[in-house]
Amino acid sequence: MQNKITISVDAMGGDNAPNEIVKGCIESINDDSNIKIYLVGNNIIINEQLEKYTYNKEQLEVVDAREIIEPCESPVMAIRRKKNSSLVKGLELVKEKKADAFVSAGSTGAILAGGTFIVGRIKGIERPALAPLIPNKKGVSLLIDCGANVDSKASYLVQYAKMGSIYFENVLGIKNPKVALVNIGEEESKGNLLVRETYPLLQKENINFIGNIEAREIPQGKADILVCDAFVGNIILKYTEGFALTMFDMLKKALLQDTRSKIGTLLLKPALKKFKKGFDYTEYGGAPLLGLEGLVVKTHGSSDAKAVKNTILQCKKFANQQINQKIKQNINMI
Amino acid sequence: MQNKITISVDAMGGDNAPNEIVKGCIESINDDSNIKIYLVGNNIIINEQLEKYTYNKEQLEVVDAREIIEPCESPVMAIRRKKNSSLVKGLELVKEKKADAFVSAGSTGAILAGGTFIVGRIKGIERPALAPLIPNKKGVSLLIDCGANVDSKASYLVQYAKMGSIYFENVLGIKNPKVALVNIGEEESKGNLLVRETYPLLQKENINFIGNIEAREIPQGKADILVCDAFVGNIILKYTEGFALTMFDMLKKALLQDTRSKIGTLLLKPALKKFKKGFDYTEYGGAPLLGLEGLVVKTHGSSDAKAVKNTILQCKKFANQQINQKIKQNINMI
Repeated sequence: MQNKITISVDAMGGDNAPNEIVKGCIESINDDSNIKIYLVGNNIIINEQLEKYTYNKEQLEVVDAREIIEPCESPVMAIRRKKNSSLVKGLELVKEKKADAFVSAGSTGAILAGGTFIVGRIKGIERPALAPLIPNKKGVSLLIDCGANVDSKASYLVQYAKMGSIYFENVLGIKNPKVALVNIGEEESKGNLLVRETYPLLQKENINFIGNIEAREIPQGKADILVCDAFVGNIILKYTEGFALTMFDMLKKALLQDTRSKIGTLLLKPALKKFKKGFDYTEYGGAPLLGLEGLVVKTHGSSDAKAVKNTILQCKKFANQQINQKIKQNINMI
Repeated sequence: MQNKITISVDAMGGDNAPNEIVKGCIESINDDSNIKIYLVGNNIIINEQLEKYTYNKEQLEVVDAREIIEPCESPVMAIRRKKNSSLVKGLELVKEKKADAFVSAGSTGAILAGGTFIVGRIKGIERPALAPLIPNKKGVSLLIDCGANVDSKASYLVQYAKMGSIYFENVLGIKNPKVALVNIGEEESKGNLLVRETYPLLQKENINFIGNIEAREIPQGKADILVCDAFVGNIILKYTEGFALTMFDMLKKALLQDTRSKIGTLLLKPALKKFKKGFDYTEYGGAPLLGLEGLVVKTHGSSDAKAVKNTILQCKKFANQQINQKIKQNINMI
């Protein structure tokens, strides 16, 4: 038997809002009758979009929210002032336990601030962490933290490792996932103060800690969970995206340089499509903000309907596996 | 008129030593009669290699050095104890002004330690920095620091920016190169303590500081000089290498999956070769260790003859442009 899940979705956040967000929501409820969605945002605009689709009206409710949080605003101030924004109203539904999860493609800073101040941290968690998946040769790795904790302490990183393990094992279904500390060398003595302090602490934890991982080995998929502070995590996450895009650009240019290459490219179309798919963020769903008293998921700013749908389905797995319950048990076991 | 230059080369360091190192040296002197090389290492092994080639004997001298520094040794201890290693003897030639530069494909840690302790810092330089070039869409960027200064201060980063500018302008010939601070956001207020402290200091310097750069924009070539601490620099450098290799692997696999793709790939061979060349480290020479009283250059551990030759030619430019003289003038102007 499948459990029902209710998700509040920020209809107004992201580059393709609200059209693609609405479309993704419709696709997910049409796919799965156990999902209910609160679509939060300007109800006039949302209803206009909804008219295009056929769906079970009981599975979707529009929650009106008229204020917009601009990307340039201070996240904390915006959360405090704009009580009628889709972000604040969507998060409040999680806080009030009316929704199991909140999904937004809006500004990362505002989602982080809102998640922390509105939904609140799990007792014992020092800092919540944003944990996106990045592609590698074998599949994906969870990169934790990519959030706001740029000047981290070793104790934060230890909690990231534990939360990341629980998430990966339960949501991605990999038993006893390999946890590695992102460092500039393999030996325990390598790295800056933070990682040198973190290494022995990770060894003591009941996780599958495989030691340091050098950045060179990340794309090979040697570890499932990559532990680092948010500054390093952010660099890796954004570099992955920028590098892949640039390589595709350069490849495209090389492939269309002359007639011979153009014919070759035509023959290779299916193969190249398959290759590119491995780097497609829309396949992997969103990045959960782990350590909160509810599930908050940030999807890519340029998410399309497919990415939104995949993120919603991912939320269902998260709730069904009672990730937060497991994080709580694990943190209190220290 | 061209100036003469003398370079000491570590014949024993790197994955392809001594064969490819010796070959690269021969190719460079056969190319340029103004280069003289001290080839440092086990003279029996080196002479065996040299017998294969025809070259002007006046341009090459073998310096016997029998000790080997192992990758697992503590760099500082190894430098102190193994006075008869190719690394120590090669660096001493620079210290004694018998050579203008030292080139090695050996262990980065040992080269850094040796450069600092044997050749010595320029007066006023707080920390020397290792500055490799990484590929981007438009060409290359200088990534400074990728060395050993993993817990940096803002004042180090300011010196890196200045040294990087001088190097880039004079060796790569780009007038007034764009300097950016690697950060996780564009705004001055973004990032960890180190970068927030560094930003206003860079604004005051007589360099072309364009502000923060996010990792996503690095592959687009928005900046010529990327300033960061060595932990972040190392992550970017090694991730670039690992990611490119993995992408080529995945591409290759996709391209050879069926007959149709194989025919397409055959037609695309020249185009793909051109594409791959853009990511070929052997094209860019080595990474200088800036801020020392002489030129020390680390070439890639898996350097072949072409990479060694390109590194030697790069040293010539460095010496001809009197980079160290310019760094000294610039540091003393503060």
